[in-house]
Amino acid sequence: MKFQKILIANRGEIAVRIIRACRELGISTVAVYSEADRDSLHVRLADEAYCIGPTLSKDSYLNLTNIMSVATLTECDAIHPGYGFLAENADFAEICESCNITFIGPSPSAISRMGDKAMAKQTMKDARVPVIPGSDGIVEDMDEAVRIARGIGYPVIIKATAGGGGKGIRIAESEEALVQQISTAQQEAQKAFGNAGVYLEKYLTGMKHVEIQIMADRHGNAVHLFERDCSVQRRRQKLVEEAPCPVLSPELRERMGQAAVRAALAVEYCGAGTLEFLLGPDGQFYFMEMNTRIQVEHPVTEMITGVDLIKEMISVCEGNPLSFRQEELEIDGVSIECRINAEDSERNFMPSPGKIGFYLPPGGVGVRVDSSAYPGYTISPHYDSMIAKLIVWAPTRAEAVNRMKRALSEFAIEGIKTTIPFHLKLLEHPIFLGGRFDIKFLEEHDVNKPYGDESVTG
Amino acid sequence: MKFQKILIANRGEIAVRIIRACRELGISTVAVYSEADRDSLHVRLADEAYCIGPTLSKDSYLNLTNIMSVATLTECDAIHPGYGFLAENADFAEICESCNITFIGPSPSAISRMGDKAMAKQTMKDARVPVIPGSDGIVEDMDEAVRIARGIGYPVIIKATAGGGGKGIRIAESEEALVQQISTAQQEAQKAFGNAGVYLEKYLTGMKHVEIQIMADRHGNAVHLFERDCSVQRRRQKLVEEAPCPVLSPELRERMGQAAVRAALAVEYCGAGTLEFLLGPDGQFYFMEMNTRIQVEHPVTEMITGVDLIKEMISVCEGNPLSFRQEELEIDGVSIECRINAEDSERNFMPSPGKIGFYLPPGGVGVRVDSSAYPGYTISPHYDSMIAKLIVWAPTRAEAVNRMKRALSEFAIEGIKTTIPFHLKLLEHPIFLGGRFDIKFLEEHDVNKPYGDESVTG
Repeated sequence: MKFQKILIANRGEIAVRIIRACRELGISTVAVYSEADRDSLHVRLADEAYCIGPTLSKDSYLNLTNIMSVATLTECDAIHPGYGFLAENADFAEICESCNITFIGPSPSAISRMGDKAMAKQTMKDARVPVIPGSDGIVEDMDEAVRIARGIGYPVIIKATAGGGGKGIRIAESEEALVQQISTAQQEAQKAFGNAGVYLEKYLTGMKHVEIQIMADRHGNAVHLFERDCSVQRRRQKLVEEAPCPVLSPELRERMGQAAVRAALAVEYCGAGTLEFLLGPDGQFYFMEMNTRIQVEHPVTEMITGVDLIKEMISVCEGNPLSFRQEELEIDGVSIECRINAEDSERNFMPSPGKIGFYLPPGGVGVRVDSSAYPGYTISPHYDSMIAKLIVWAPTRAEAVNRMKRALSEFAIEGIKTTIPFHLKLLEHPIFLGGRFDIKFLEEHDVNKPYGDESVTG
Repeated sequence: MKFQKILIANRGEIAVRIIRACRELGISTVAVYSEADRDSLHVRLADEAYCIGPTLSKDSYLNLTNIMSVATLTECDAIHPGYGFLAENADFAEICESCNITFIGPSPSAISRMGDKAMAKQTMKDARVPVIPGSDGIVEDMDEAVRIARGIGYPVIIKATAGGGGKGIRIAESEEALVQQISTAQQEAQKAFGNAGVYLEKYLTGMKHVEIQIMADRHGNAVHLFERDCSVQRRRQKLVEEAPCPVLSPELRERMGQAAVRAALAVEYCGAGTLEFLLGPDGQFYFMEMNTRIQVEHPVTEMITGVDLIKEMISVCEGNPLSFRQEELEIDGVSIECRINAEDSERNFMPSPGKIGFYLPPGGVGVRVDSSAYPGYTISPHYDSMIAKLIVWAPTRAEAVNRMKRALSEFAIEGIKTTIPFHLKLLEHPIFLGGRFDIKFLEEHDVNKPYGDESVTG
């Protein structure tokens, strides 16, 4: 089967990214947009475009009924959901199937299994993918807690099963502390969430966020496309991603890749997916979650492998076998992505929506820009604040860093504040340059301050 | 020696290209500009910028005295000449040397030897590089002409030694025709140029323009970086370039590459250079000329090899050995470059200078833009009409063509006419798609016309 027309159920740069792939494949595109996005680039670039509702996402980009109506009326063969919005909604995938429209992603059951944390963890254990050691559910009583903690070793972290946002979290460094803190944690959980249930996990420090890109077809083939290091995060939001991970050995890369492929095969995966792992300084890695969709940071993988992940997703969802075998994939050079957001990084990353005046993205050798911005475009406060993804490639990490600094310094975006100044400082930071940063790096180091001050501020 | 500061004796996209490389290398840059180029991007991007004279090139970009003054006063270690202007001026290279400023290019003697057509041809013959068979100078009398023509075989071309622009050119298909036409050609030459001297060359048809990129250091090392096919030309001006050449066998590539390396070694070359060859359908190739500088179309070579040619030029001129060996170089994928000129391709490529309004270059996977344009920039009628070089990379030629079509279709340049519509038509032409086009392709086929008409118009 060859798709003739694809609806892109998304907005912004990822909608533009998918339209570009479709155009190169000779597939017609249907864009959808909210009332606020009438002048968006994805609307201009698509072959057809339809308004699907008011500004709020729930009324437009999450509006299943309107999206399916457009897809049906325009006779689309398939829907690409991008990331966010409906991309990991198993019901949506199911509805597409029932309308005889291909959902460009895995099956509804694969989405469900990976969307449920407990089920995902069990699936991974069954596939011999390492998970964070812990109680695997609520600890019934103190004896069980002590027994489990002895098994996994201290420190352990106590988390409320109904918790979130850091509430009800306690770290115990010893058995004595565990005994003391577990009832406090239970009481706090009861008070905060009306549910006293707590569970235990090994408390891991110095961890990197390293994720493996996988790609699978409907014929039982799955491969990995190596890793991305996404440890530069602020409040769990990725700001900079790179491939390959600067500290991964070929042997560990191979083991993590094979684990990811086992995970994909275990759920009969189809399309592009990502296994997110925590990687410790000791080389141990632990499954966090699987994203059953394309990711924001997919370009760094494309840059080091030469594979067009969006085209490949479309191809495997047309029913074709993977267009490459594992042994044909190789890492060539280094790629880094900086997310350029409409945020004032000097004022705690406060959103800075508004109208862009002069706009000129950087160009030249080794520079890629994925963006939906243009001169005169208004960044809406209603959606995410990303203006552009700036991606560079170079033969070595040092050259990639210098190229990124060059590209950032010539990226002209007037009228709004952006994260460009933040990235320029980050790329000078000795810990970033050393490659051994972990997910707490930005919490522990204020890159806006001169490094001389760091010993003072901790 | 490590350069601290480089003066860029050029304008437009190549000045921007060189500034980018310097910035990535941590080298300060000095831009020079004519009065017309005050608002140019190369002026904005350089660390320092100085006006060197009025609009006309002879008063500014060719003004040796003013350029050397700026270089001396700003204490530059080196000058990068780009292409055009002073790039192949041996006197300029000599003056740089005498001022103790490194000319980023080969020695004055290498420039001179390759700048003189007769000397270049003799140098190539000595280096066993095939040249177009012919009389190697003025034919003294009819007997000699007949003897030479028998040696090289008919048809032969009779050219005026003082000629140019096609004047005084005669093609002889047989000995009878030669005898008849040679005196006519001599008379015509005497009349037109005041010099009756004519020479003979084999008349070659169905030729491709295939050029080999070479790079050499001051330690006796020289490598080739494969070929570029630049056969898509209009009045000897290249419009589209690609690498690798779609019809070259690995064996022929190797032979042409080795010939180019022999040529480089023969003149103790340093830096980036290009050997231009005519390649016949029979696989025979003939030296045309050597360009002793970086070329407009160098990015396609960068895209398939991963080598930054400008950085490497700078490095070898600092005295470093080449950073790679021949056997480390490999061709990865296919790259195509389209020159986007301010010309109305539907009206005989009439220049279309003027102010650009809305401007948005294409982005996304596999797309590179080398340009000095920006929203609101005015293309001057005083210099060349190039707005941008649009370069794509893809794993295969078919994918690269589709990517180029996609990128061209989203390139927004308002306010002036461009060659984008021409390129879009060219990329649909069956002869271009087949890869077997020769340098007469655009003369013989009007890509602006539907192909159905071609059999009628020839």
